[in-house]
Amino acid sequence: MTRTLFTGGTVASATGSLRADVLVIDETVAAVGDLSQLAATMDMDIVDVSGRLLLPGGVDVHTHLDSGLNGPRTADDFESGTIAAAAGGTTTLVDFAAQAPGLGLMDSLAAHADKARGKAVVDYGFHMCVSDLYDGAMADFADVVASGVTSFKVFMAYRGTLMLNDGQLFDVLRRAGSLGAQVCVHAENGDVIDRLAADLVASGTTGPRGHLLSRPPKTEVEAVHRAIAIADMASAPIYFVHVSTAGAVEAVAAARRNGGAVAAETCTHYLTLDPEMYDAPGFEGGKVVLTPPLRSEEHRNALWEGLGLGDLSVVSSDHCPYCLVDKERYGKDDFRQIPNGGPGVEHRLPVLYGQGVATGRLGIERFVELTATAPAKQFGLYPRKGVIAAGSDADLVVLNPNGEIRISADTQHQRIDYTPWEGWVLPGRITQVWSRGELIVEDGRYVGAPGRGRFLARSTVS
Amino acid sequence: MTRTLFTGGTVASATGSLRADVLVIDETVAAVGDLSQLAATMDMDIVDVSGRLLLPGGVDVHTHLDSGLNGPRTADDFESGTIAAAAGGTTTLVDFAAQAPGLGLMDSLAAHADKARGKAVVDYGFHMCVSDLYDGAMADFADVVASGVTSFKVFMAYRGTLMLNDGQLFDVLRRAGSLGAQVCVHAENGDVIDRLAADLVASGTTGPRGHLLSRPPKTEVEAVHRAIAIADMASAPIYFVHVSTAGAVEAVAAARRNGGAVAAETCTHYLTLDPEMYDAPGFEGGKVVLTPPLRSEEHRNALWEGLGLGDLSVVSSDHCPYCLVDKERYGKDDFRQIPNGGPGVEHRLPVLYGQGVATGRLGIERFVELTATAPAKQFGLYPRKGVIAAGSDADLVVLNPNGEIRISADTQHQRIDYTPWEGWVLPGRITQVWSRGELIVEDGRYVGAPGRGRFLARSTVS
Amino acid sequence: MTRTLFTGGTVASATGSLRADVLVIDETVAAVGDLSQLAATMDMDIVDVSGRLLLPGGVDVHTHLDSGLNGPRTADDFESGTIAAAAGGTTTLVDFAAQAPGLGLMDSLAAHADKARGKAVVDYGFHMCVSDLYDGAMADFADVVASGVTSFKVFMAYRGTLMLNDGQLFDVLRRAGSLGAQVCVHAENGDVIDRLAADLVASGTTGPRGHLLSRPPKTEVEAVHRAIAIADMASAPIYFVHVSTAGAVEAVAAARRNGGAVAAETCTHYLTLDPEMYDAPGFEGGKVVLTPPLRSEEHRNALWEGLGLGDLSVVSSDHCPYCLVDKERYGKDDFRQIPNGGPGVEHRLPVLYGQGVATGRLGIERFVELTATAPAKQFGLYPRKGVIAAGSDADLVVLNPNGEIRISADTQHQRIDYTPWEGWVLPGRITQVWSRGELIVEDGRYVGAPGRGRFLARSTVS
Amino acid sequence: MTRTLFTGGTVASATGSLRADVLVIDETVAAVGDLSQLAATMDMDIVDVSGRLLLPGGVDVHTHLDSGLNGPRTADDFESGTIAAAAGGTTTLVDFAAQAPGLGLMDSLAAHADKARGKAVVDYGFHMCVSDLYDGAMADFADVVASGVTSFKVFMAYRGTLMLNDGQLFDVLRRAGSLGAQVCVHAENGDVIDRLAADLVASGTTGPRGHLLSRPPKTEVEAVHRAIAIADMASAPIYFVHVSTAGAVEAVAAARRNGGAVAAETCTHYLTLDPEMYDAPGFEGGKVVLTPPLRSEEHRNALWEGLGLGDLSVVSSDHCPYCLVDKERYGKDDFRQIPNGGPGVEHRLPVLYGQGVATGRLGIERFVELTATAPAKQFGLYPRKGVIAAGSDADLVVLNPNGEIRISADTQHQRIDYTPWEGWVLPGRITQVWSRGELIVEDGRYVGAPGRGRFLARSTVS
Repeated sequence: MTRTLFTGGTVASATGSLRADVLVIDETVAAVGDLSQLAATMDMDIVDVSGRLLLPGGVDVHTHLDSGLNGPRTADDFESGTIAAAAGGTTTLVDFAAQAPGLGLMDSLAAHADKARGKAVVDYGFHMCVSDLYDGAMADFADVVASGVTSFKVFMAYRGTLMLNDGQLFDVLRRAGSLGAQVCVHAENGDVIDRLAADLVASGTTGPRGHLLSRPPKTEVEAVHRAIAIADMASAPIYFVHVSTAGAVEAVAAARRNGGAVAAETCTHYLTLDPEMYDAPGFEGGKVVLTPPLRSEEHRNALWEGLGLGDLSVVSSDHCPYCLVDKERYGKDDFRQIPNGGPGVEHRLPVLYGQGVATGRLGIERFVELTATAPAKQFGLYPRKGVIAAGSDADLVVLNPNGEIRISADTQHQRIDYTPWEGWVLPGRITQVWSRGELIVEDGRYVGAPGRGRFLARSTVS
Repeated sequence: MTRTLFTGGTVASATGSLRADVLVIDETVAAVGDLSQLAATMDMDIVDVSGRLLLPGGVDVHTHLDSGLNGPRTADDFESGTIAAAAGGTTTLVDFAAQAPGLGLMDSLAAHADKARGKAVVDYGFHMCVSDLYDGAMADFADVVASGVTSFKVFMAYRGTLMLNDGQLFDVLRRAGSLGAQVCVHAENGDVIDRLAADLVASGTTGPRGHLLSRPPKTEVEAVHRAIAIADMASAPIYFVHVSTAGAVEAVAAARRNGGAVAAETCTHYLTLDPEMYDAPGFEGGKVVLTPPLRSEEHRNALWEGLGLGDLSVVSSDHCPYCLVDKERYGKDDFRQIPNGGPGVEHRLPVLYGQGVATGRLGIERFVELTATAPAKQFGLYPRKGVIAAGSDADLVVLNPNGEIRISADTQHQRIDYTPWEGWVLPGRITQVWSRGELIVEDGRYVGAPGRGRFLARSTVS
Repeated sequence: MTRTLFTGGTVASATGSLRADVLVIDETVAAVGDLSQLAATMDMDIVDVSGRLLLPGGVDVHTHLDSGLNGPRTADDFESGTIAAAAGGTTTLVDFAAQAPGLGLMDSLAAHADKARGKAVVDYGFHMCVSDLYDGAMADFADVVASGVTSFKVFMAYRGTLMLNDGQLFDVLRRAGSLGAQVCVHAENGDVIDRLAADLVASGTTGPRGHLLSRPPKTEVEAVHRAIAIADMASAPIYFVHVSTAGAVEAVAAARRNGGAVAAETCTHYLTLDPEMYDAPGFEGGKVVLTPPLRSEEHRNALWEGLGLGDLSVVSSDHCPYCLVDKERYGKDDFRQIPNGGPGVEHRLPVLYGQGVATGRLGIERFVELTATAPAKQFGLYPRKGVIAAGSDADLVVLNPNGEIRISADTQHQRIDYTPWEGWVLPGRITQVWSRGELIVEDGRYVGAPGRGRFLARSTVS
Repeated sequence: MTRTLFTGGTVASATGSLRADVLVIDETVAAVGDLSQLAATMDMDIVDVSGRLLLPGGVDVHTHLDSGLNGPRTADDFESGTIAAAAGGTTTLVDFAAQAPGLGLMDSLAAHADKARGKAVVDYGFHMCVSDLYDGAMADFADVVASGVTSFKVFMAYRGTLMLNDGQLFDVLRRAGSLGAQVCVHAENGDVIDRLAADLVASGTTGPRGHLLSRPPKTEVEAVHRAIAIADMASAPIYFVHVSTAGAVEAVAAARRNGGAVAAETCTHYLTLDPEMYDAPGFEGGKVVLTPPLRSEEHRNALWEGLGLGDLSVVSSDHCPYCLVDKERYGKDDFRQIPNGGPGVEHRLPVLYGQGVATGRLGIERFVELTATAPAKQFGLYPRKGVIAAGSDADLVVLNPNGEIRISADTQHQRIDYTPWEGWVLPGRITQVWSRGELIVEDGRYVGAPGRGRFLARSTVS
């Protein structure tokens, strides 16, 4: 039995910050409080975190590792991706398992699980993507859920590859809901987008800005409204991924006030990056060809407000990394061919801390809630993950509020040739990361064992 | 030159009622006012309408005559249907011309026009239904509009026959809008309905009530929201046919307040009939298998309120008559096979007058607006139709507010074996109907020439 | 018997424009339509108004002539004020009769009526201001109403002189409502304003801009909300004078949609003038010290939108003229002492036509409704006033849409040394004004008989 | 040094429930977690709370002990009142200190503090009531706040005794806000109520139901709207006491979503009692003559919903006990003379637990938040009060979810001859109450030292 006592720090939770000691026994938090007398009477390791914040390890519920979902394979596999996550203070991932063409759900899931096993260095679960409702698919949902994969993902865009029609969306929601599972929805009106995009290309707008212009805010807002109505008719809960617009926040807020089991996330980049990036010289604008596109300040303000009011519950990364050279190779002449996605799992906590907490837009409590507590609750991982309390996994992030971080592609762990936050210097520095009682990151370097991450079988909704 | 002076009546318009004489010269209204001195100096026929209301002839913009759009052919052709219309005070129709399988739009239109020519006894125009976007269809829109058919109709339900997907809806809206044409939208989420209906049949609900249960209010509300968003992205006006729910009224109202070119009609039956009719003994419930279904009192109240507040602009009949024997023959064992539709062109004005004006829910001005002025304006017929004013066609309805009407299938002109208002006795009786200066209905009997109706080439929106 | 036929013009009404002749017999409109044949058979004067609009004479329901209500006596008496009105196309006024200190309502009313009799050149009625609820005041309301003064006016501001408290407001609303009378409400939270104003003066802001700063939008919005609630509890209709803010429009719109008998006017200056005028050099800013103050563009846009959507029913002038020299004399050192009010009865129609109709913001129909039809209906004068139709008073304005007007204090009929629209050149020129069949204004000059105006006993609300 | 270890219980907080031990050292919580090993190594008292919930002691921020604020003196002094509080699981009160006629604020406060000192058995603070703004009152606010009384209370009703006008309300809000203090507002339109009440009495409605009828929901809703607007203009936070209507909840919710520093409480009785109680035989209806009155089910549902959605932050008791015999003596012939108020401090937690948690309407987390955490935060007592965490006062309630309570005037500690929940049997039983580490209630009996309560100097808002 190993005993470790973290002394002198401030323990942050979704509801308050507390000067307290934290006792970890083996992989688990044993007690929180004034434990100085205990230390005097028992043998234990002491970790002095005076002047530091102790945060629960981040939970990122939107990543695409080693995935060919939207085009070519993403640049991070489970090794590089989870090391990057850990370096950025994230100790739990829920990654998207794509449905492989011609394969059933369980086989697709097994194939994705194989990629993670022995490579991931932090704990992880999966969402099951559903893009082909073969005969028997609905029956297989029960097996998926029984295996601890208690959420599905569907698309309202990308006709011909990923898109489900409204009837299929209804089927998935109803079936998943009856099993106590969540459905994550990518909400965009794909058909309208396809037409707007074709028009743009036809009229000569072929560069990255076309990506922005072909996806006006209403393409998202409409789809969010529609999916809420369909979920309501299916008596099922619904979770919107990567919400980017003021109108979508409003729609979600209204549904929640009406008692709907509706939740939504936004992502780090929608909160912090401006669409003027699409006009960068050369093909630089391709860096932020991710979906939905970046939005104007009015929308960003609405997202921050939505985080403050509780209409948005989660900030995720939508980590979906493609190297810029590949983006250009595919999509130089037609923005529709650019692989959609960007990196982010490593910088979610630093960027949100620097832009949210340090600027006063978010309290530290809300920061913890958005990055750890709420995603853990939403996806059946709480209280094992997402909180520092007796009985929880000892996933701890030590953050020095007086330090700072400089973000750069040169120094990142993400295996990709750029970051959209290149050169940003932000207050707050993660000095240590612990996962299940083991120190795995020390001042930016991964120091844990290889492949130590474990698969997390998640709960259903009661 | 024929001169006719209507004296002693009260001329009703959308903005007020006026004790005034009306001078008709040939087919046209020449003057409104105190014209007694004129009568003394000139030769003219005098029609004494003392104690009567003089209303502009009704304009019904939603009828399906001689049509196989939704299944078997409707029971009224242009002769019986327009005689029924005239008998009920309606002197102008805009009927739906279906797109025939394998035929282009112009050929479909010509085929429908052939059915009307020489048979219709009141003036008429067409909406062009679009259900198959063949190559070149978009180009043909211009010919359709040039021929005086300045509105199109599309369906968001009935996958496999009539339904367009969102992209096609966008295409039609954008193209029609650019030509100054309207698009009439049947707004229901057909895919969700199909699933709910299949479930009901599978679980043994095969009778008429299944029709109601398979089309809950949100199937309409969602589609209305969606179509408004798509019309907005297409920068096009939109007109919703047969709105039946409180939520749809709200959505339309909100869009109008935001400046959208959005309008909507409801129909007589949604205002006056209760869904308990689906539970009538035997197959009687089949009478009201029309789409959307009848709604509960809460929705009816919202519709009346919408008429009062101006959120709904038009009351139409959605006259789509199928004999009950045919309904039963097709759909006895499966409500999905019942031909959808019911009669109404003959009783729109009497029912709305009796239930609206006589009860105090509508002023006579608003009644005139909803049944004549507004539909004429909406569809490019004003001020030729829809108002009694110098220069307008002399389409006049003489109504005795102290009379009454008893509705019955036995005495109606509609060629069908039932009416959903069977046995209703309502205040208000139409004693004469004039069309373009000719007396065509006298105390319930058609007395005009056969086939006298003319095709109306309608204006586009400026 | 005099017969006059206006030929060749376009007759505008709230619902449409019509090429038609208008026959006037003595003081009254006899007929509207194609009356050319009539002219051939009968003796009548012909007035050729080809190429002109024929509008119903303007109805201005908010003027303060010969009044000491808010401080010193206003600069226009009933002679100069009504001549100015006529010159600007307004043929009906409803003026405010102040309650004189120590006098009962009926005596106050008689005193004000004396000032009008024999001096007014257009027809007029009165609203009865209530500022002192002496014993028996409530009983006297019945006499006031019986004398044809069917509306009252109360103030929620100006503690110590005009202001009623909420209980008194409730009393007036309930009593007036039970008599079928309207209550016009000046809605501002006077107590909060007094504090803000005192603070401003204390901190050295003593000039005209202080007037603006001491009356922030919420002082109006709050009072409108409150008065709506109190009217609702009193089961009485309510009419808001001079609404100036977006929030007030919203509150009125919401109440109307909920079925409340709530109506509101705005004034010409709130639609067209910018608060930067308070910063004019010297004491020029004093010109627009009127209450509420001018508002920013955001509010002006909301007012125009409210006119378009029907949330605001009336545009009045709030003509309350004080010469600038007097304003300065009283209030040079303390904006609270500046007599509140400005001129406008002469330029209401020209400014609204030029800024509303000519720019496309209002249709001519809505212009007629806002300036004539709706105020006549609201205050029991319709259809005698507010419309050109058989039986109405022959109050006609002939407007040349191709002409223009240049506004200037030098040429105005208002007896005051400035106009806030000084130097504005606007499209549209009034060429003639007729009142009860008599030509009273010809190209800007008053040509009617002196003192020809008549008192209008107005109807109650049914 | 005393060490007490509570073992085997479930510790409830606003964010979760946790199987954990709680270590108390002297008056303070030292640690929360698995502390079994500690117990083995150190000398400490063990309290076995297996199968029990451990809740933070209740915080009731709305009581009127030993007070003549609204009429005769309330029936509980600080001894009986705080014993009753303790018996019901409430270990902290914030009581209202009335401003005595003719006395300054500080003297009034001192007089009230004298009544509490040596009598109260739980910790307490005060709100300072302001009903007379004497010269210098504003200056005295600073002294009040400096003495640890960081909230004020004002009334918008009761003209002639307690009511402030809008200008005074503005003054109080602005001054308090500038000092970082809260203002608690009793929001009712007193003037309208006075008229409605006078009418009722005049028309013969003199019994308790008159109290209900004279205070329709809009009297509250209007005042809440108004106070929100005034607080906004004063740039000050505002807290509404005893909110009872759906409309008030909506207004508060809207203000909060707009970023206003607006909060509101409701009370136990508004959530659970029906206005049919006013019709009880004899004078029984007088029991629930409290202000505002009880509301219909529609409003109760809105209040529960508001608690769920977070629009309402706090549930208080508004404990203001008058014996029924006194109520009847004063108000037998005129409901306006009945002393307004009822008992509740003893049954707030049991009723809310039984009707909220046990029925599933509230989670235990939200229950803790509403009764302890949120009121402590709102009024500057957190984290000393309102939470079980290292460093907090050891105020602990031990609750047996499998027990039950029977409420009766016969067995209550409140010194009054009735309870409105007479005979109610509710799930959940408080078995022990600890205050600052001392056991003070054991199975319903007070077992602590007399007069042990301490005054709490509260923080201002940062």
